[in-house]
Amino acid sequence: MGQLRVAVAGGTGRTGKEIVRYLNAEEGITVVGVVARTLAGKSMSVVLPDLGRDIPIFGDFAELCAVHPPHILVDFTTPQAAKQHFYQCLERRIHPIIGTTGFRDDELAEFATACSRAQLGGAVIPNFSIGALAMRQAVHAVAGLMQDVALLESYPRSKQEIPSGTSQRLASLLTAHRPELRREIPIHSVRLDGVLPQQEVRFGGEGETIVISHLVSDRGCFGRGVALAIKNIPRFAALVQDLEYLI
Amino acid sequence: MGQLRVAVAGGTGRTGKEIVRYLNAEEGITVVGVVARTLAGKSMSVVLPDLGRDIPIFGDFAELCAVHPPHILVDFTTPQAAKQHFYQCLERRIHPIIGTTGFRDDELAEFATACSRAQLGGAVIPNFSIGALAMRQAVHAVAGLMQDVALLESYPRSKQEIPSGTSQRLASLLTAHRPELRREIPIHSVRLDGVLPQQEVRFGGEGETIVISHLVSDRGCFGRGVALAIKNIPRFAALVQDLEYLI
Amino acid sequence: MGQLRVAVAGGTGRTGKEIVRYLNAEEGITVVGVVARTLAGKSMSVVLPDLGRDIPIFGDFAELCAVHPPHILVDFTTPQAAKQHFYQCLERRIHPIIGTTGFRDDELAEFATACSRAQLGGAVIPNFSIGALAMRQAVHAVAGLMQDVALLESYPRSKQEIPSGTSQRLASLLTAHRPELRREIPIHSVRLDGVLPQQEVRFGGEGETIVISHLVSDRGCFGRGVALAIKNIPRFAALVQDLEYLI
Amino acid sequence: MGQLRVAVAGGTGRTGKEIVRYLNAEEGITVVGVVARTLAGKSMSVVLPDLGRDIPIFGDFAELCAVHPPHILVDFTTPQAAKQHFYQCLERRIHPIIGTTGFRDDELAEFATACSRAQLGGAVIPNFSIGALAMRQAVHAVAGLMQDVALLESYPRSKQEIPSGTSQRLASLLTAHRPELRREIPIHSVRLDGVLPQQEVRFGGEGETIVISHLVSDRGCFGRGVALAIKNIPRFAALVQDLEYLI
Repeated sequence: MGQLRVAVAGGTGRTGKEIVRYLNAEEGITVVGVVARTLAGKSMSVVLPDLGRDIPIFGDFAELCAVHPPHILVDFTTPQAAKQHFYQCLERRIHPIIGTTGFRDDELAEFATACSRAQLGGAVIPNFSIGALAMRQAVHAVAGLMQDVALLESYPRSKQEIPSGTSQRLASLLTAHRPELRREIPIHSVRLDGVLPQQEVRFGGEGETIVISHLVSDRGCFGRGVALAIKNIPRFAALVQDLEYLI
Repeated sequence: MGQLRVAVAGGTGRTGKEIVRYLNAEEGITVVGVVARTLAGKSMSVVLPDLGRDIPIFGDFAELCAVHPPHILVDFTTPQAAKQHFYQCLERRIHPIIGTTGFRDDELAEFATACSRAQLGGAVIPNFSIGALAMRQAVHAVAGLMQDVALLESYPRSKQEIPSGTSQRLASLLTAHRPELRREIPIHSVRLDGVLPQQEVRFGGEGETIVISHLVSDRGCFGRGVALAIKNIPRFAALVQDLEYLI
Repeated sequence: MGQLRVAVAGGTGRTGKEIVRYLNAEEGITVVGVVARTLAGKSMSVVLPDLGRDIPIFGDFAELCAVHPPHILVDFTTPQAAKQHFYQCLERRIHPIIGTTGFRDDELAEFATACSRAQLGGAVIPNFSIGALAMRQAVHAVAGLMQDVALLESYPRSKQEIPSGTSQRLASLLTAHRPELRREIPIHSVRLDGVLPQQEVRFGGEGETIVISHLVSDRGCFGRGVALAIKNIPRFAALVQDLEYLI
Repeated sequence: MGQLRVAVAGGTGRTGKEIVRYLNAEEGITVVGVVARTLAGKSMSVVLPDLGRDIPIFGDFAELCAVHPPHILVDFTTPQAAKQHFYQCLERRIHPIIGTTGFRDDELAEFATACSRAQLGGAVIPNFSIGALAMRQAVHAVAGLMQDVALLESYPRSKQEIPSGTSQRLASLLTAHRPELRREIPIHSVRLDGVLPQQEVRFGGEGETIVISHLVSDRGCFGRGVALAIKNIPRFAALVQDLEYLI
């Protein structure tokens, strides 16, 4: 197969920028353009001086498609913009890969129906970190064996969600495993300037403990998950909502 | 089912003593006697003053069987003694559960053959810690997802094996998962007075890390694994060498 | 100097027992007797079978003094008993070393006055762990340099104090260092079966973090602090309330 | 006092760039120019698009001095370039603050003599991280109290120094504290892709352990140390080689 032509909506934002940087260095993928209203008409080298080539920025996805039609759209924007992009993709038989969060369950259900009808692979993935996926799988492996469990998370004080969505998802995973646990699983939310995002699950047993922790040091951690999703989504003809199916 | 009658060979040793303490408090299990040459004729309350009842100590397993025939023998002795006990058990249709380590592969193969012929469940388990099992399953879950890996272990300076058998087993598990890893997986062996036995597996990925660690604080951690093995071994008619089948 | 003759009040309790075990193996110290109502008339080998010699248990401190007068009394009892022992010591010119906690400030002030009047060294020390002292000194060294701080503690669910006195003392130490900190220092209290007592102070700065943690794996950790206090208290003619002066 | 005018030599390198970013946002400091051969004639916004103002890049320090004479030079270049800049500074009564490493002891001695003769404050500091300083002070506070110690460090595989200079410095500090330690302090060097630079000192005692760890998540951590050095160096009339005197 030749190069996969990829567009990135929201590619000048904090996460989007790192996605563009990662994909630009990935074999088999060509980033053909970025959608971002504020820097429309400029090149990505304005925000990523070390990029080594010019990637044009468009104010609008339709415009990008007219000039450099992609096979796949990666979207890190807002729920409103991402939803619009999703349906524009299906019309043009472009695979949408959405990293934007905040959709309602009924919106996700509509996305799924639309993909199945179009017989086209699309993805809505709340967290592209391979490590976060690995963490969940490790927690899943241990949950049934140890007697007691607590969750800890560390984020800078600027993080507003307390506890984080990631911890809430881990807590749900643990509760699903251990319906006998009447008491709620406690989440200890440390907010401390200077720290990196970290999740810790501490399991206690008779005379022993197991601690599993995941530390994110760089938004570049999402790049690998996005790259794997890009390479695998063409095999699908439906909506994918779990990163594990794409890696 | 009534009470499971259990004998413990090596029950006055450092680990054996904790096994007796644990089993004595476990519902459904009665410890009928202990085999230990040095304190033969005495009661376990000599080494465990808080036990609450008298468990007689015998100098010899045959002698114990004559007085208080058990359903199951738990053995934490030496390879020589354990081997002899194993075959004595089969003759008497007592299930042997061996925690003693140091058998050769051909000895293990003979144990397996003997159990199958006798159609009797027996177990040889190198580590009864549920946490160590949980750790291996967590490592197994993460191994295929992260790019790089290193092992650390901490033991008191008195620990002679460098690296420990537990770390070597973890390293084998990781290598089995990642045959593409040409380089050997490094094991960093910290020897430090005052520490508890600890294994750490550190995984590195693009912009993220996962650390899984297992700390043993009390030899009582083996008790739960032994108790589960006791309750499950009657269902088997062969040799079991993996704790996961018994829990 | 010859052997220091030491009595231990409360020497059959969970901590007291470990103190007796430690002191019994310490050069320069002889444990002449233990005060404990419940096992009066018996020997310490009833609770510590491996002790190697008989240490008599007395129902009353006055009785012990009549038979085996000590130079020093170590007390791990209750505030009521310890207070009585304290004044009995001063009358007999025995140095009291009190590990019992729960005295009011006015009681401590009276202890100090009494020691100064008697010109006799005595000690009331809430925590004899050398590691807890080392932790406070490390926290003291770092507190002025880093911008932000949070405390974490882990204890088994049976621990009733939330947060622990040790964490509260660390928080006070940090606040004393950083009066500019308007907001309170958060203490995250993890309660988890199977864990050992652990304190963690996490400091955050610009692009870096420092974590200091103290893990207690064995009540034997108090023994060394008590032994050092025993050896140093004869040099004093007043009440000592800080372990650092005694080591 | 008015604004401190600061030049940064090596300001387009990996660390230098972050120093410029930090100083540019610091009150009381104006970055008047950067010395860097490769981008001479351009503006710092080429490498730091978000800077918000233009800082000119000069190919040569003398040239920079002619156009925008600074009070202070911060240098993150090579030992050769830094040495030349150091003496150019003294001639012009500019305070040199050198973060470049790799000087021989005799070169440092000459720097010290030159500063004292000129009665001008200068600094050569191998590590501007406040956290690394805090770590050393914490280690210093604990070293004399605990019995045993081991060092661990984690760096990405690209780090060539094994062990790192930082760990070697910590080991020297520990040895200085504990001349009775005959055996060498072991340094365990973990090299793992995806990790951040981390130092860990693990202390073991009787039944307890203390772990002190320092994690660097962002080169921005050096900025605060450099800013404090800039503000304090005018008070000196000699060479300063310890960050603690400057904060």
